[in-house]
Formats: sequence, structure tokens, C-alpha cells
Amino acid sequence: MNVMGFINARVYAFFKPLRLYEGFVVFNDKVIYTGNNTDVVQLTRDLGGNVIDLKGKTVLPGFIDAHLHLDSLGLSLVTLDLRGVKSIDELKKKLKLYSESSSFKWIIGRGWDQELFIDKRYPTKLDLDEVVKDRPVILIRTCGHVAVLNTVALELTGLAAYDEKEVEKDTCGNPTGLIYEEAVQIASRKFMESITINELTELLKKAQYYLISHGITTVGFVSCSLKSLKALLEMWVRGELKIRVRLYVNPFDNELNLVELLRSIGLKRGFGDEYLKIMGLKLFADGSLGARTAWLTQPYEDDQSTNGYPAFEPDNLRKISKLSDELGLQLAIHAIGDKAIETVLSIYRELKNIKHLRHRIEHVSVLRDDELEEFSKLGAVAVVQPHFIISDWWADRRLGSKRIKWLYRFRSMIDNGIPVAFSTDAPVEPVNPWETIYAAVTRGKYDNIAFYDDIKHESINVIDALHSYTYGSAYAIHEENVLGSLLPGSYADFVVVDRDPLETPDHQLKNIKILETYIGGIKVYSNE
Amino acid sequence: MNVMGFINARVYAFFKPLRLYEGFVVFNDKVIYTGNNTDVVQLTRDLGGNVIDLKGKTVLPGFIDAHLHLDSLGLSLVTLDLRGVKSIDELKKKLKLYSESSSFKWIIGRGWDQELFIDKRYPTKLDLDEVVKDRPVILIRTCGHVAVLNTVALELTGLAAYDEKEVEKDTCGNPTGLIYEEAVQIASRKFMESITINELTELLKKAQYYLISHGITTVGFVSCSLKSLKALLEMWVRGELKIRVRLYVNPFDNELNLVELLRSIGLKRGFGDEYLKIMGLKLFADGSLGARTAWLTQPYEDDQSTNGYPAFEPDNLRKISKLSDELGLQLAIHAIGDKAIETVLSIYRELKNIKHLRHRIEHVSVLRDDELEEFSKLGAVAVVQPHFIISDWWADRRLGSKRIKWLYRFRSMIDNGIPVAFSTDAPVEPVNPWETIYAAVTRGKYDNIAFYDDIKHESINVIDALHSYTYGSAYAIHEENVLGSLLPGSYADFVVVDRDPLETPDHQLKNIKILETYIGGIKVYSNE
Repeated sequence: MNVMGFINARVYAFFKPLRLYEGFVVFNDKVIYTGNNTDVVQLTRDLGGNVIDLKGKTVLPGFIDAHLHLDSLGLSLVTLDLRGVKSIDELKKKLKLYSESSSFKWIIGRGWDQELFIDKRYPTKLDLDEVVKDRPVILIRTCGHVAVLNTVALELTGLAAYDEKEVEKDTCGNPTGLIYEEAVQIASRKFMESITINELTELLKKAQYYLISHGITTVGFVSCSLKSLKALLEMWVRGELKIRVRLYVNPFDNELNLVELLRSIGLKRGFGDEYLKIMGLKLFADGSLGARTAWLTQPYEDDQSTNGYPAFEPDNLRKISKLSDELGLQLAIHAIGDKAIETVLSIYRELKNIKHLRHRIEHVSVLRDDELEEFSKLGAVAVVQPHFIISDWWADRRLGSKRIKWLYRFRSMIDNGIPVAFSTDAPVEPVNPWETIYAAVTRGKYDNIAFYDDIKHESINVIDALHSYTYGSAYAIHEENVLGSLLPGSYADFVVVDRDPLETPDHQLKNIKILETYIGGIKVYSNE
Repeated sequence: MNVMGFINARVYAFFKPLRLYEGFVVFNDKVIYTGNNTDVVQLTRDLGGNVIDLKGKTVLPGFIDAHLHLDSLGLSLVTLDLRGVKSIDELKKKLKLYSESSSFKWIIGRGWDQELFIDKRYPTKLDLDEVVKDRPVILIRTCGHVAVLNTVALELTGLAAYDEKEVEKDTCGNPTGLIYEEAVQIASRKFMESITINELTELLKKAQYYLISHGITTVGFVSCSLKSLKALLEMWVRGELKIRVRLYVNPFDNELNLVELLRSIGLKRGFGDEYLKIMGLKLFADGSLGARTAWLTQPYEDDQSTNGYPAFEPDNLRKISKLSDELGLQLAIHAIGDKAIETVLSIYRELKNIKHLRHRIEHVSVLRDDELEEFSKLGAVAVVQPHFIISDWWADRRLGSKRIKWLYRFRSMIDNGIPVAFSTDAPVEPVNPWETIYAAVTRGKYDNIAFYDDIKHESINVIDALHSYTYGSAYAIHEENVLGSLLPGSYADFVVVDRDPLETPDHQLKNIKILETYIGGIKVYSNE
């Protein structure tokens, strides 16, 4: 039995409505009391516990990142970081340096964006072959939907012989090294297949520590493979899982059909304990704006030949969604373009358990007014990544002046009563929740976002942002009764931060620091 | 948030060492405080809760029945009860009456014991056919290892054409209707296959209510089929599961190989929430003393031609045990005869995770001195059913005067430091925990057990019995930190009883009544 009373703090136990206390009492893994210093001290002493003086610091519920890729995040932490690279030459230099130090057989890099290159062209296999000839190299674009491979990697993944539009060919019919969508998934899968469960466990632990150090106490792990599930169960059984993980599995996992497995046993949404729960399925309705694979109703502004395309044949998406709904598994469907969102909404409209299972739409990037209304009526959950606002600084090129106003409409979602959950899609966007909150509040005001004036009306305040990152994300994973707040009865998942976000100027929000992170009453991180 | 302070009670929060309090505070589903009335009232008021005056009544931790058959128990509650039937004529009359009132297609009866019949013979299919010709009838012997079927049931189960020793034949080679072991399992399986998941859910709910009304708050459900697992998950997802269920699955389930399923996902012991957890596998090393199928080292005293036999080829048992151990699944192996126990101990000795997974031996009926020592050294758990002492009143006939002293050695187990868990094997023995405690304490003293003098030295006191039924059983399911006590931090699973068992004369122990049952702070039963 472990009782702790925290006093002399600014404890934001809840945001809407705002609940501010001087302290709180933790009994084992849960908060049992919030109140003033005197009462907290009294109660803690009565229960034989220790009083901890927080000396005026601010305490918030732990952040819940409702949508990220735990395995890829772990990988990214040992991955060649190509963000901000300004030329193909710089990319080559970084690759060379990394290849000399990495012990992995495969070399994986991530984060390049040809839009930033002075060369104004995509890298090719020839660029990579110049630097690394003997080991497979995969360099994934910032969006995750495009990658470039060297010749060895094209061979090892079998993509050299792949005769689909997702593997780009030069005029002679030879692969250029650039691959898209499905092919990126195949390449990543091949790479993941080469990783053992033990290696994967190490990667997941790196991701866990990184998240905890940023104040994340619970994550929605989307597109979880059977292998990652097994690795997590290994961590779980050894007591090494410290962060709470909620799983949305990839039903198209190569190894075995995970939907069939879940169906065979009859496992349903929410089965598992407070650390690890199975939630449902992650599916895709379309691709990304960056790669012009997001499915729009009208053509892309900067390429009138395409309006993107469905990532999954809509009738099949409908079929597997129906099955998931019947099996009692929650859906989390990726939909970025307005046509993709329209399609998912039309599928959700037909599902019996939509309200009960709280099916989710991930990203919800380009949202029309009519969809906003329909979304709200259905009771679906919008799982958004506010930091996209800053990363997608080129979005007006894709969408043009009319549709840019439909981008990342958090203010409208909240005003229309749509449950909104915050997340980072890490490793796509930075894990740091303050970057996300900063992006949601400022929407590019300080980041030279050219279309800021067109989207600034969708800004939200810090309270809304914190509410979405705590209660909102807890709601998305069906746990708003025990997570996302510090009211009595909640798990004692909280962070101590270096300043009060409600009294921090908006441009400084991303500078807030996590001092300590607690999960279930256990201190899992301290910055000291 | 729900806070309740219980006062003016005799609260036995723990038994070894004894911890007695006037009251306790429940916060939501857990006990957060035990102490005197004044402190409980104060703390409850501080937390904004209600005080409940128990007016001097006795409170005990809820009973944990570590080994029973939840599905069969539900079935038994709608089953023709043949316990205590004194003749084949009486059996026929009961069958007739029941067949006229039951709406089930199949008629299932249970509990007959030919030892009690004045006829001194087994019933046959001809006896049953006389009464019911048009519907299948299965009447299972009290031990569960023998059954008699009518002609329709022999046909429907396919056992009429079964050419094995488990289907008894008359001198002309026709089945007599009597079936044994494997054949009983086939017949039961055929019957269970005819039951829908919805019907099964209804049966499980009947079992749940019956258990709760007897003060059982957690059960180890052994030999759980995939179908029962699915039915439980249905109850779980609908919030209808009120009792805590820990599952030991039958790996030889007809429909699908459950071990393969668990292995495919990587599910391990303990996965699940506080209501429903997957624990491991239930296996069999031998049969029963009643049917002379329990595996003894020396021949049966009353049938020198046999010493029973292994229910499962020992090398295969070793193989599947090793697999289970490697997969992180707890074993629960049925072993009644001393040779069977010896075999299981020799298997357990080789398992890497024996201490960590706390592999169990079920029944442990005939235990030699050398085995007692080995058992203790291994750290295995003995899951026993003390009421067998009274039901097996004929055991000395099977074992003779030397071996009868090896029967149900609870005192020796406890003195040798073997973790002992109590259970009923329900529906084999009565669910009522006071019958079990009575049997463990009195060992037949008041029940005309002929060999009482030979086994009375293995009596235990009420404190040991209560300890085994609470902490002991919680230990067997790896949850002694949160179940089986009312110390702070434990789930608020408790019973209010009509008298103090520690001040009740031994012959009256079985008359103690459950007044109220709470699970996780929720009142799930009241006798009013």
C-alpha cells in the first residue's frame, strides 16, 4: 500500500469545466482526493502516507496520444533523421555518416521532403547506391507515404520485380527507387520481418521512455502488427510496460490474419488490463496530401490530373468495417481528403454500434461543412494531429484558396460537439505535446504559414487543447472515467511542468518542460 | 466516485496472521482503510461517503473457489439432480417427472452413485429407454467419469458405434449404455455442441448468481471450452459479468485448438481485466477413485487387477506441459492417484517457470510422504476440494488401510509449506463454502466416515480453512495482492455472514449463512 499527498501545487484536475486544486491524494494507483493543502495533509496522514511538497509547481493529467506508431517511433529513435535536409547532397552525407556507425543490417532513414531540396527533385536509387551499395537502404519521406530505396533494398524487398504504379519506373521501365503507398508498406514490412521479437522489444522500450519523458502516459498504438502485439505482451508479462497502450491492430498483417484470430477467440474492444488493451482495427480510406494520394472530391489544385484515390476499395472497406462493428471491435479509419471522409461517414452511418463503439476517424484533414454536421450527428470521434498545421505549410498549393479553409477545423469540430482527441501520429510529427498544443493554439501565426489568415478562425485556446489531449483522447479510447483527469477515481497519471500553461503566452507554449511524469502513482520519469 | 464506510462489524481482514477490525472504508472498488469505528467514520466523511452500520455482524473476504466448472455448474442448476437416489426405480421415477417438465431437447442428469443403490448394480440404457425413448438422455455419475445413456443418446453421440473400452459392451457386443472417461467427455461435448452461445450465457448467469448467493466472489474456471470463453466475453462486454473469473482452458476443445490460438496471439497468464483473465491450461493426469481410473502405484484394494491408468500418455503430458510453460501459461493438472501425482511432479521438476507461473496440481488426493516433500520443494500449488472427504466415504475400500492415511492431507500440506487453495470442483461437490470448511475441519467426524480415525490427524482449524479459501486461492491465481483479504489495497470483495465462524462449534460450521455479498464494492447479493 502506497499513499502520497501532493501539496502546494497548481493542480489542473480537469479542464472543461476547469477544476483547480492545491493538492491531491494518491492511494496506490489512483487519485482518491483533490482539495486544499490542509485537507490533503490530514487525509494523507490518516492513511499513513507521505506528503510531497510541489513548491508551487503546476500539475496536469498525463497526456494521452491517441494515435501513434509505437514500433515506428522506436525505430525512428534509432533511425537516420533526415528532417530539415536541404539538398540531395546533404542527404548523401548524412547517409554515409550513419552507415558507418549503425550496427543494424538494414539502414532506415526518415523525414526527407523534396519540397525543401534546393535540387527540387526527388532522390533516386542512384543517389543512394553512390553511398551504400552492400546493405539495403530505405529512406522514407516525411509523410510516410513515399520512400526511396537503393538497389539492394529493391531486390531484398522484391519490389524491383513489382509491376504496379506504386513502384516508379523510368522511361526504360527500370525502377527509379521511388515507391509509394502500398509499396512503402511492403518495404517497411520486409524490414520489420527481419527484426526479431527481442529487438522489437528493445525498440518499443526506447519509444516508451521517449514518450514518458515528454509527459505521455497513455498511447493509442495504431496499425499494430501481430509481431508488435507479441513484443508488447512480452514486455507486459515481464512488468516492463510502464506506459498504457491501447491497440488498434493492422488486420492485413502479413503473418496471420489478426481479425480472424480476434474473432476466433471472441476478443472484444477493451479486453486487457490497465496497461495493455485490445481496442480494434486500424484501416485506411486514403493516403496523404503531401503525396497527393489523399482522396479529394475535386482535383488537386497543383495537379488537376488527379484527385487522389481510395487506399482501399470502398466496398471492401465497408465490408471489413461491418465485420469489425459486429465483432465489437472499434474502428480507427484514416481519412484525410474530403471524399475519403465522406466515404467513411457513409460507412459509419450504416453501423449498428457506432455510438456504442465510438468509431474513430483519423486525421480528418479536409472537412466540408456538410461533413462537419454529419460527423457530429453520428457520434464518431475525430482523432487529429494539430502539428500537421505547421508541417503541411504547403497545403494551400494542394488545396487552393477555397478548400484551404476546410483544413484542420478543430474550432468547428469542438463547436459542433464532435469529440476531438489529440495525437501526433509519431514518428510522423514530434512526440512533444507542447508542440502540438502550440500548433493547435497558434495555427502557424509564428511559423510563416502563408495561409494563416485563411485558417486562423479555427484556432482553439489552451484549455480546449489541454482538454482534447486529456479527456478528449481518453474518450476516444473509452476510458474518460479513469484517464485524462485527476478527479477522484482516476488513475494517478500526471505530469509536473515548469510553468502554468494557462498563464504562458501562446508563442512560448512549446517551451514548456516536463519535470516529472507519474503513471498509476509511480514516478516513471524525472528530468533531474 | 463511491465511498462507503462500514462500521460496527467484526471484520476479518486477514487470517494468517489474524487481522480483526471494527470497520473499513471502500473507495470505488477497493478497500482503502481498515480500523476502528471512529477513524472509519471520520475518513468516510472526509471523502464525502456514506457510513453503513453493520450492527455487530461478521465480515469476511469473499470466497475464492479456485477450481470449478462454471458451464457445468450452470447446467447442473437446470439438470436432473440424482444425488442421494437410493435405487434404480427411484432414478426412473425422477427421470420421468423431469422429462415431462423440461423444455431442453436433451435430458441431462447428474449425481447418481451405484454404491447407494439397493440394487447394487449400475443402471443401463434399458432402464432409461423404459422411461424416455424419443429424446436423448445422459445421466452422469457423481464423479463425472462414468455415465449412462439411453439408446437415442448413444446414437446421437455416435458412441453406439464406438469400439473402445470406454463404451461398455454386453456379452453380445452391444453397448450397455454405460460409458467411461473419454466417452463421457465425448457425450458431454456432443451435448454442449447442441447448446447455442446465448443459451450458454444464460447457464453461466445462473451459475454466477448461485455462486454469489453462496459468498463466492472469484472462481477458477477449469476446462473452459472456446464456446464458454466466447459466452463469457459476451457477458463481459455487456457488463453482465459480476463475479471474477479466471480461465484454465481445455486445450483439446473440439472446435479449434485453444493452445494454438493463445500461442498465435502470444496471450499469456493473467491477460485480461479484474473480471476476466486468461490463466492457462487444464490437463488431466488420471481419472477418479470412484471409477477406479485414478492412477495408483499399487493395485486398488478392492480390484487387484487394476491400479488405474494415466488419462493422458505421460510423454504427451510432458510435451504439452513444457509448451504451456514456455508460452507463459499456468498449468492446472488433475492428479488424484499417487502415481499420477508422482508423474506430474516429475514433469513440473523440469519446467523452467514452475516457481514463476505457480503451476497447480488439482485434487492431490492420494499423496505419499516422499511426494509431500517434493511438492513443497517445487513451489507448486495444491488445489484441493475438502468436501471430497465426505463424498468419498467409501475411499478405504479402494485404498485399504495403509493408503487411506495418504488421503486429502491438508494438515501435512500446510505444515510442509505447500500453498493450498480451496475449491469445490462444482458441480461435483456443493458450492456452499461452509460445507467445504466443515469438511476440512471435521473430516467426517459427524458423518459416519468409517476411516475417520485414520485421517483425523489431517484436520485443520477454521482459521487455516478460511485462509486457504481466501488468501490460498488468491495465491493460486496470482492475485494475493488484491484478492483474498480486506487489507487496504484489496478489492472490496466481501461477505457479511450471520455468525462468527471462529466462534462457531465445528459441527455447526456448515450452517453459517451468507447475508450479503459484495464484489468490487458493489452489493451483488442480499438474502433479503
